[in-house]
Amino acid sequence: MTFTAQQNSFMREAIRLSEENVRSSNGGPFGVVIVKDGVIISTGVNEVTRHNDPTAHAEINAIRAACRVLGTFSLEGCEIYSSCEPCPMCLGAIYWARPSALFFANTQQDAAAIQFDDQFIYQEIARSHADRRLPTYQMLRDEALQAFRLWKDDETKLAY
Amino acid sequence: MTFTAQQNSFMREAIRLSEENVRSSNGGPFGVVIVKDGVIISTGVNEVTRHNDPTAHAEINAIRAACRVLGTFSLEGCEIYSSCEPCPMCLGAIYWARPSALFFANTQQDAAAIQFDDQFIYQEIARSHADRRLPTYQMLRDEALQAFRLWKDDETKLAY
Repeated sequence: MTFTAQQNSFMREAIRLSEENVRSSNGGPFGVVIVKDGVIISTGVNEVTRHNDPTAHAEINAIRAACRVLGTFSLEGCEIYSSCEPCPMCLGAIYWARPSALFFANTQQDAAAIQFDDQFIYQEIARSHADRRLPTYQMLRDEALQAFRLWKDDETKLAY
Repeated sequence: MTFTAQQNSFMREAIRLSEENVRSSNGGPFGVVIVKDGVIISTGVNEVTRHNDPTAHAEINAIRAACRVLGTFSLEGCEIYSSCEPCPMCLGAIYWARPSALFFANTQQDAAAIQFDDQFIYQEIARSHADRRLPTYQMLRDEALQAFRLWKDDETKLAY
């Protein structure tokens, strides 16, 4: 695959943000830019420790910012450039946001080599509940299903 | 597995929140409570459409709230009760937050039956990049690795 000069420049901006985030002691070495119609509409860096928020990865921050800019919960037609392959949390967020494409540079194996849990979490998610390191239990499904029936029957709901 | 009366009561509160969220037209049928030392320290409901934020699932909201309460990015020693099996985004967030246990009621198949993408995203994450529905491309890894080297060599960093 060959990339255009513009695509390279978007990824280089994500990479620049990832380096700046380390140099400024703001957080982990991760940067993201989100692009729509050839223009950067949001950026994000890792701010987990800075904001005491384990969900504050670069992708999540950039997605939330892009949605604020666009005033919508959908990033249809957008491209996401991440300096590293998204972890399962961020990949899940990307699927929910529904962009048109994802570009990444470093891999989950590269992240594992500097002691980030991305690869471990990918392995865990692929396991059955019983085989996961996190103790996981199902209970009270019969009672919980009522909310799903309410949702299904709600004709005023805003589905997504 | 048998659950204690207290564990049942925590899950019933998550279920109550999930129903209330539909009845009040606030968002999808999902509720979460996070417990530490036998006390609920935070709750969360789905607010994706309300806040135009595709990451505002019940678990993510509850995790962020619990971390604000505790003033930390770790939920060690906490239990998470979710009215539905977490989607990959939320399961990833749960792994990053490192609670001691996860309890859930409805399943990803139940969520799929009312048109939520949880099961689809689980299937996608298990596929290779090339086989995913989301066009995914790697580029410029050699340039991006520099940020990881900076992080590795930074002796002042706050790792997590």
